[in-house]
Amino acid sequence: MFKKVLIANRGEIAVRIIRACREMGILTVAVYSEIDKEALHTQLADEAICIGPAAAKDSYLNITNILSACVLTGADAIHPGFGFLSENPKFAKMCRECNIKFIGPDYESIELMGDKARAREIMKKANVPVVPGYEGSIENEEHALSIAKEIGYPIMIKAAAGGGGKGIRVARNDEEFLKGYKTAKSEAKACFGDDRLYIEKFIENPRHIEFQILADEHGNVIHLGERECSLQRKNQKVLEEAPSNILTEEIRTNMGEIAKKAAKAVNYKNAGTIEFLFDKNNNFYFMEMNTRIQVEHPITEMITGVDLVKEQLKIAYGEKLSLTQEDINITGHAIECRVNAEDPENDFRPCPGEISELCLPGGMGVRIDSAIFCGYKIPYCYDSMVAKLITYGKTRDEAIVKMKRALGEFAVGGVRTNIDFQFSILETEEFLRGEYDTSFLAEKMVKNNA
Amino acid sequence: MFKKVLIANRGEIAVRIIRACREMGILTVAVYSEIDKEALHTQLADEAICIGPAAAKDSYLNITNILSACVLTGADAIHPGFGFLSENPKFAKMCRECNIKFIGPDYESIELMGDKARAREIMKKANVPVVPGYEGSIENEEHALSIAKEIGYPIMIKAAAGGGGKGIRVARNDEEFLKGYKTAKSEAKACFGDDRLYIEKFIENPRHIEFQILADEHGNVIHLGERECSLQRKNQKVLEEAPSNILTEEIRTNMGEIAKKAAKAVNYKNAGTIEFLFDKNNNFYFMEMNTRIQVEHPITEMITGVDLVKEQLKIAYGEKLSLTQEDINITGHAIECRVNAEDPENDFRPCPGEISELCLPGGMGVRIDSAIFCGYKIPYCYDSMVAKLITYGKTRDEAIVKMKRALGEFAVGGVRTNIDFQFSILETEEFLRGEYDTSFLAEKMVKNNA
Repeated sequence: MFKKVLIANRGEIAVRIIRACREMGILTVAVYSEIDKEALHTQLADEAICIGPAAAKDSYLNITNILSACVLTGADAIHPGFGFLSENPKFAKMCRECNIKFIGPDYESIELMGDKARAREIMKKANVPVVPGYEGSIENEEHALSIAKEIGYPIMIKAAAGGGGKGIRVARNDEEFLKGYKTAKSEAKACFGDDRLYIEKFIENPRHIEFQILADEHGNVIHLGERECSLQRKNQKVLEEAPSNILTEEIRTNMGEIAKKAAKAVNYKNAGTIEFLFDKNNNFYFMEMNTRIQVEHPITEMITGVDLVKEQLKIAYGEKLSLTQEDINITGHAIECRVNAEDPENDFRPCPGEISELCLPGGMGVRIDSAIFCGYKIPYCYDSMVAKLITYGKTRDEAIVKMKRALGEFAVGGVRTNIDFQFSILETEEFLRGEYDTSFLAEKMVKNNA
Repeated sequence: MFKKVLIANRGEIAVRIIRACREMGILTVAVYSEIDKEALHTQLADEAICIGPAAAKDSYLNITNILSACVLTGADAIHPGFGFLSENPKFAKMCRECNIKFIGPDYESIELMGDKARAREIMKKANVPVVPGYEGSIENEEHALSIAKEIGYPIMIKAAAGGGGKGIRVARNDEEFLKGYKTAKSEAKACFGDDRLYIEKFIENPRHIEFQILADEHGNVIHLGERECSLQRKNQKVLEEAPSNILTEEIRTNMGEIAKKAAKAVNYKNAGTIEFLFDKNNNFYFMEMNTRIQVEHPITEMITGVDLVKEQLKIAYGEKLSLTQEDINITGHAIECRVNAEDPENDFRPCPGEISELCLPGGMGVRIDSAIFCGYKIPYCYDSMVAKLITYGKTRDEAIVKMKRALGEFAVGGVRTNIDFQFSILETEEFLRGEYDTSFLAEKMVKNNA
């Protein structure tokens, strides 16, 4: 096994990785920015090296400094965590060139999955369902209308060169389509200097359901069930649960097999996640693949008993998966609430600052992955997520009751958090019935702040 | 179910009980002494009532004040936790007379099990093995010698009226026996004014193995496997694990059935523990029954998935056990380390004081039952145990590795703790091999401080 692993990240995920390494007898190297000198990951690792000033671009995104730290400390592998450099193919490639094992997939897979159009193409070829759309060039308005009719309403019109929501229109009939086509075209021209459009089926208020994959370097791929991640605010997941209460065993098996097919289609290695859009008629469509460990991985760990970070390390070292698909037994139900230092009363504005009081929940079925402690100063320059509270119960109801109990005793002084907001989600009828989709938070919970 | 439960205790067990109540939708009343006004249990409960000054005799042992608090708040039941009034038959009886449900067995069972001689008698009658001994009166030295020979060496000679170790002698042959008999007799006379002696088999360096029992009010009794509690210092458990690594499935089944027989013999109701001495030849002997929830109950919860405090509440309310013996599946391995505010360098002297820094471990497989927080002042007047750290792994090795990892990141500032001492136990060859008995800590770990 690796002797020493450098963790190119900070916060709770860095601590999470240190824990896995320590339990496997692997030495750890933390890297930290100047503002993270007293951070928990810096304190817990066997060694810690400063890699630059507070701004992420100068430290946690500073490839040269991170690779130097790795060479300097003699670490034989780098775990990138999530965010920062975790899905940067250049970084993964440079690790390989420096003869340092990047704990994640090959850079080729990262690159490929980062290119949404190519990823879509490959998935289509591999018979992984993608959102129906027209890939050819659109000749004129009439042609566009015939494409729209063939796909069927509702339709989404996007700028082919677009991004950031610019030039996007939804149409529910011919009239809306023709109007939307025109405005989208001129908007695309104005924004991107390119008026080519792309037409696809609009999946209305879908669920976001993702499958966890583990793939070794010997061609073995398994899935570890799904995570229901529909509770999002501005595309940021807020609360996740596993399993999803709307999947039948049949759909789960089917989606799981397709997720494995997707991973195999790109010769994927290590842990990854296939994200699907899931519509009202139980149709599901490949959305994207995340080529890293995810924030919400603990809920999968709770219902499968598999330590995903340890599996990542073993796979990266070249070991064969010790688990087969048949070994994966999903038992019970897990929920994760992301605890953010932010102000839900004030459009969820981040609230960095010093934690002056802290009482963490505990007891049976409660897991905390965090990097906070009393006296810790949450820096202004990074993500506002400071802790993950995970509960596990034999049933969904039990996991919910435990989460409410745990949130109720989670006390943080000195900074505002979304703890009460999370609690209020758990009190809604819709959540309790498991009847929610990606529109739920914006439409029902944050109407006044959206 | 009960509407409101008063918790006649403090510290982590009070918090533990509040958690179970909250998850069951039961309101909670905390009682607190003047020094515990800011304690966590006082803060977390739905209501809190001061029951007297700091000294336990004036507050947590003050039956009148506790019953008054119960009547005042309209609580319909009292959970006594462990220690304090939990095994006080008078208290249990007064609860019944006040029409308040005592969450525990009938006072008759408590009384009976508190009388070690009567308990021994009943167990013997019920064919529960007890340490071989002579119950009749001893006529003279010659008679004593013949009894000793019949039981077989080593032999323990005790003052019949004794206690506190006074008048106890161990003999390994006739010569030692005759000498010990004389000195024990004169010591008994001097100490207790009663020179009657009691002779029993001396169980040399036994293991302490106990079985968790649940018995409802409808005659159903199950056991939830054993806990290995041999790591003790001056009869105080320090670290417990479950299951015991030396029990075969056959012995476990046999002991479990005998434990159930013991509970049935006294018409036991609610959660209880049958403690056994377990010798080098796999013989086991009833030692005593604890008629309450125990400090180390979480390790049983981890390996069975059963919430014992919730079961206590359901049983006390008159519900039938929802679990049969067949439902109890023991999976994995759990370890509990008791974190005490004490100084292992200084004969484990209690170290009350203010917690100025605190970092609690977390992550997968780690459970914390505690009542501490940063800024909390550990009072001088109660038990020095302030937290329980519990780890769970698929195997014993995994649970050990997790415990070492968790202890390593458990940081407490301002007071001394036994965290490093616990860590050092986990590093001994004997512990790692599971080869230890009740003599281990005193002989191998605390020689210089004993």
